[in-house]
Amino acid sequence: MGAYKEAGVDIDAKMEAIASISEQAAGSYSPAVLSGIGHFGGFFSLAEAGAPAYAQAAGYKEPVLVASADGVGTKLKLAVALGRHEGIGRDLVNHCVNDILVCGAFPLFFLDYFAAGKLDAVALGQLVAGMAAACKEAGCALLGGETAEMPGVYRDGDYDVAGFIVGMVEKERILNGAKVGDGDVLLGLPSTGLHTNGYSLVRHIFDLDPEDAEQAAAKLNEHYDELGGSLGDALLAVHQSYLPQLGPILAASANDSRAPQIKAMAHITGGGFYDNLPRVLPEHLAVKINAQSWQVPPLFRLIQQRGQVSSTEMYRVFNMGIGMVLIAGPRNAEWLSQRLQTVQIGEVVRRADGGPQVEISGLEA
Amino acid sequence: MGAYKEAGVDIDAKMEAIASISEQAAGSYSPAVLSGIGHFGGFFSLAEAGAPAYAQAAGYKEPVLVASADGVGTKLKLAVALGRHEGIGRDLVNHCVNDILVCGAFPLFFLDYFAAGKLDAVALGQLVAGMAAACKEAGCALLGGETAEMPGVYRDGDYDVAGFIVGMVEKERILNGAKVGDGDVLLGLPSTGLHTNGYSLVRHIFDLDPEDAEQAAAKLNEHYDELGGSLGDALLAVHQSYLPQLGPILAASANDSRAPQIKAMAHITGGGFYDNLPRVLPEHLAVKINAQSWQVPPLFRLIQQRGQVSSTEMYRVFNMGIGMVLIAGPRNAEWLSQRLQTVQIGEVVRRADGGPQVEISGLEA
Repeated sequence: MGAYKEAGVDIDAKMEAIASISEQAAGSYSPAVLSGIGHFGGFFSLAEAGAPAYAQAAGYKEPVLVASADGVGTKLKLAVALGRHEGIGRDLVNHCVNDILVCGAFPLFFLDYFAAGKLDAVALGQLVAGMAAACKEAGCALLGGETAEMPGVYRDGDYDVAGFIVGMVEKERILNGAKVGDGDVLLGLPSTGLHTNGYSLVRHIFDLDPEDAEQAAAKLNEHYDELGGSLGDALLAVHQSYLPQLGPILAASANDSRAPQIKAMAHITGGGFYDNLPRVLPEHLAVKINAQSWQVPPLFRLIQQRGQVSSTEMYRVFNMGIGMVLIAGPRNAEWLSQRLQTVQIGEVVRRADGGPQVEISGLEA
Repeated sequence: MGAYKEAGVDIDAKMEAIASISEQAAGSYSPAVLSGIGHFGGFFSLAEAGAPAYAQAAGYKEPVLVASADGVGTKLKLAVALGRHEGIGRDLVNHCVNDILVCGAFPLFFLDYFAAGKLDAVALGQLVAGMAAACKEAGCALLGGETAEMPGVYRDGDYDVAGFIVGMVEKERILNGAKVGDGDVLLGLPSTGLHTNGYSLVRHIFDLDPEDAEQAAAKLNEHYDELGGSLGDALLAVHQSYLPQLGPILAASANDSRAPQIKAMAHITGGGFYDNLPRVLPEHLAVKINAQSWQVPPLFRLIQQRGQVSSTEMYRVFNMGIGMVLIAGPRNAEWLSQRLQTVQIGEVVRRADGGPQVEISGLEA
């Protein structure tokens, strides 16, 4: 055994794992990915970005790259406790896809960073399978990544993973809230669960021991009638990608200025409604959200009751059942609402002098 | 105190830290960075990629994006023990810059992922200062990043950080070893130290306790005559960026086909000579390296003696004083050797049937 292996790092195992990743990643490749031509970086040809059609660089007058980095937070700990990692791979990709989608951008490629105390080939394999599948669904190439063994930083079985996405948008089609106006309407698209936010609070409330995976697994496997299943199943539900729903609408509105336009979108992640909506609001505007306009899913109610969490805090930490908010003019909002089978959750108003940019009414005390 | 703060996540502190990062990042912006236009992703205009000149998308016939993800490994643990994080930020950027430089690509933008159990504003501040400075030096925009608090995953004071870089290269200028031939010459560029590889082995050899920062700090502060300073200073030396030396040569050779050409480059990182050189060698070729052709720096000798590590293992784990290897034809190699004030360390030969692709002679037993 070499000295490096003794120190906790196995270069051979790492090389094998990387070979298997390459194979899985290849399933997400379009002709734009120049594979087999080099190994220090991933190559993505802008000129050949042929599929999907909306990513054709040639058709862009002023192409702008949009990039974002994300993690999945301590949802990881639940996946580790239950030994279910595939969904984490999907979470990571979908979170990134949504973050650039709200800018109006379509994904080109994705890279990951995976670090663990000791490389667990099974966990990594599941994770990569999830990333590769989600990338394929998003028409996005899983272009590369880094796999690091860091003994002494991560506990046995623990790991961390980060995702990095690059997409493209025509400069004049960038969505940033500049066009949002008084009287515009907010539509909410349902989330599939907590997505990737609020897990540290949930772990605290349900008393999941971070250093005892068995204890955590036992609690996660408990059945809850109101959830219609186990706590773990509800908490590990995959972060929804809104690209399948919203991509065609964005593409249509880019090609035809008379098509219904979305003025802005906010991905409801860490910081909930309060921190994410102001990102797409001009300074002089605010939003009024009516919390009674949609049904808060049972999982959030359970968390709130168990943890005796105030409603304001709940709406700050969690998405409360709304993973994506769209802002559109009243007429377009009606069309979008029908097309997306969703409801109006609020409206844009003039902001009171020194007032907050987000007000939520109808909260239970 | 809100419930989320109680669970170990402080959203306000995070938002403040992010504001300070934005300010520092702005120092690395060229006109290609569209700032102030959105907050879910970072925007980089290909059409306006004006400075540096080599990144002008308009001048590329078939622009190819090259992307890479990296970490700095357990060098982090030494930085944590000594409370010195600025160099880690530089390490991360420079590692990424080198990884795409060897493909012939120049950096456009960089993003980071930072995760800790609890956000340490001082550590993060130093880290971002280092990243921003290194990005600026590389003409690369620090476009964004993610900062995550993950209680229960990282120990107090510990953190992890990953970097993602995107650069650009003209398709026909991609360096991948395809042009390497029998009789070509290998030149070595000196490293500044371990760069970012081999730290787990070093921590093992010098008996640095991963869970006791004070013990580790005491050992790192010991003075070694052969190092002319402390062990910590030698080990935390910043990973060298080879862009200042090699960028102008690559740019000149792109503009003038009669200028000296580099055929391939290998960044000597994890896996050392043995794993990194084959990445740029056609199957039928091998390299012979003469370990006597350069002076191995005292730090590597100290590590080898202390750890009783075999020479083969040393050259597999560490860069042994050579951070970057260039491959060129004999005449160009002579010119490059003078220009870069470096030495020939080996040559390209036909590979023996079933033989290794990397042979190192002159190793001490």
